[in-house]
Amino acid sequence: MLKNEKDHDVVKKIELGPFPYEGMAATNATGDHTLMKLERRALQPKDVAIKVLYCGICHSDIHTIRQDWGPIKYPQITGHELAGEVVAVGSSVSKFKVGSKVGVGCMVNSCRHCDPCTNGFEQYCENGSVSTYAAEDRDGSITQGGYSTLNVVDEDFVIRIPDQIDLAEAGPMMCAGITVYSPLRHWSVGPGQKIAIVGMGGLGHMGVKIATAMGAEVTVITTTKDKTEDAIRFGAKNVILNEDATDFSKYKRSFDFMLDTIPYQHDIEKLLPMLKMNSTLCIVGIGKVTEPHQVGPFSLLKSRSSLSSSGIGGIRETQELIDFCALHKIKPEIKKIPMTQIDAAWKNIFDKKARYRFVIDMKM
Amino acid sequence: MLKNEKDHDVVKKIELGPFPYEGMAATNATGDHTLMKLERRALQPKDVAIKVLYCGICHSDIHTIRQDWGPIKYPQITGHELAGEVVAVGSSVSKFKVGSKVGVGCMVNSCRHCDPCTNGFEQYCENGSVSTYAAEDRDGSITQGGYSTLNVVDEDFVIRIPDQIDLAEAGPMMCAGITVYSPLRHWSVGPGQKIAIVGMGGLGHMGVKIATAMGAEVTVITTTKDKTEDAIRFGAKNVILNEDATDFSKYKRSFDFMLDTIPYQHDIEKLLPMLKMNSTLCIVGIGKVTEPHQVGPFSLLKSRSSLSSSGIGGIRETQELIDFCALHKIKPEIKKIPMTQIDAAWKNIFDKKARYRFVIDMKM
Repeated sequence: MLKNEKDHDVVKKIELGPFPYEGMAATNATGDHTLMKLERRALQPKDVAIKVLYCGICHSDIHTIRQDWGPIKYPQITGHELAGEVVAVGSSVSKFKVGSKVGVGCMVNSCRHCDPCTNGFEQYCENGSVSTYAAEDRDGSITQGGYSTLNVVDEDFVIRIPDQIDLAEAGPMMCAGITVYSPLRHWSVGPGQKIAIVGMGGLGHMGVKIATAMGAEVTVITTTKDKTEDAIRFGAKNVILNEDATDFSKYKRSFDFMLDTIPYQHDIEKLLPMLKMNSTLCIVGIGKVTEPHQVGPFSLLKSRSSLSSSGIGGIRETQELIDFCALHKIKPEIKKIPMTQIDAAWKNIFDKKARYRFVIDMKM
Repeated sequence: MLKNEKDHDVVKKIELGPFPYEGMAATNATGDHTLMKLERRALQPKDVAIKVLYCGICHSDIHTIRQDWGPIKYPQITGHELAGEVVAVGSSVSKFKVGSKVGVGCMVNSCRHCDPCTNGFEQYCENGSVSTYAAEDRDGSITQGGYSTLNVVDEDFVIRIPDQIDLAEAGPMMCAGITVYSPLRHWSVGPGQKIAIVGMGGLGHMGVKIATAMGAEVTVITTTKDKTEDAIRFGAKNVILNEDATDFSKYKRSFDFMLDTIPYQHDIEKLLPMLKMNSTLCIVGIGKVTEPHQVGPFSLLKSRSSLSSSGIGGIRETQELIDFCALHKIKPEIKKIPMTQIDAAWKNIFDKKARYRFVIDMKM
């Protein structure tokens, strides 16, 4: 299984930590990233040490560092689309061994005993799941993310990556992929349905591919004209260009489900009339906490539609998504970059120039 | 069936109209009501002429006249909780005869051929249902509501009132009753569920009674302390007083469904965390169109909850609600007033002093 046995010299297989590692940290809300040398905790019985080989760059990383979602402490390493190989395991680890190809997404712990946790919905943990970065871990430390060479994670929050999936492409499945897969599954998207994917960036482009594989007829609603061909290539049947002059009235009551991936505040009143009766617009693109969505009193009433939102997915469901992608040969469109180009990548994402996911390659 | 045969002299049984009638109209957005003499159309084949005996006063009447929902033309007669007796029928009327006890709610027409219409959801008509007042009717005239002595309505939009139900009490079922019944039904409220009714006015008090009869455990959330005893009397198990200092965090993830009847803008962010995972807050109290609800980006995400809204109910469903109320002996709490006290009643409603529905008694 392991192609690069020599890489393992980064840590000895028998070593139990603590583990020194390097990461690219933001030291304030607006500045560039800086290389830092830090240490991961020594292995607890159920921990695995993962040599991070790839980490996708998500708009959430930017929102977090910019404090769009509230204050954080610096320095902070973000990244929650990790893919790599297990290099050491704790004494009770049963699911992984040294050499296992694995991924880690947006959370690394939860209470494990509430209703959502015991039913596979750790992301909705009643006591609060622990995010992969910028969250207070159970030991009081602040979690540091995947823009780094190594991580230590409880095996219950580690996903197995099958051989058919390229590790570099596995990264973006861990957040972008599961974030769109989970609501498409929950709202039973499938054959005979017309659905819309609003915004076609990191999340949206995976949404088009996954919803198409689920059998739905997909329409992409995008502000970026030059994404039209890509949308069709990814499986969309129609593209609606979302411009100020666009007459949305002709799409009234068109969709059985709409998945809104736009990561900033926008006019959802323009979108809601496109829902059929009893249908749902689910928001997975998360803007600033200071900029709430505006919902007029008749916008949902007219066709008993719902506005909802969904956060990533549970661990069981993330494993299911990975297997679904392997089965349907679904891959994110990625561009590999070295650690040193994170700042340039962030600028491109902000400027809507990503096509469609930057993935940090730790070996570059 | 008819107790007051003599009342029928208001129109002759054989008369086909047009029908002179009197109504209390608002002549501008802020002033008092004025008695006006107008005329209803001559009977079309499927029309019934209804002698209005009672009409409930709904907050929608106030919103409409105040132009909270957009501009209207004056003079305008409101009222969409009509109860009365059929006094004349068109040549093709099959469901009613002279003397039938009937009700009319919030709509008097729809396209009849779209999906919602053909499935009993005329309120969500894709071509727009015609409201009982302040709407453009199919003939281009503006509909005039139930603060009046007589109305002419297509029999398809007329509800049969069974003998067990007092006509004065039937009025408020036609809007307040069906508006809460329809979402409680749609979201399958029943035994084993904990639900909240937010706001206990005309709609809310019917919501408490109906949801209790459906078998749910009901909690009332109200800003009005002196409604506590009433809430319990109507069937609620718990009452949460909604004050600035109220600590809502202890009710986090408490409810399987929340029905929000507050007819003005309010802080729904305070309410949403009380929903269990995958649950819905349904808004049926409609505020000003210029004051949209604010929904923060994480408010629905944290437990994949939904914000929805529901408008009145279909005709078939309204008939079902009436029969449900008859079966479960559910009645609105009403206070009868003469036509001349409409303005005072409106002030009381606005000041949260209604207990719980004013009903105009045309004979007073």
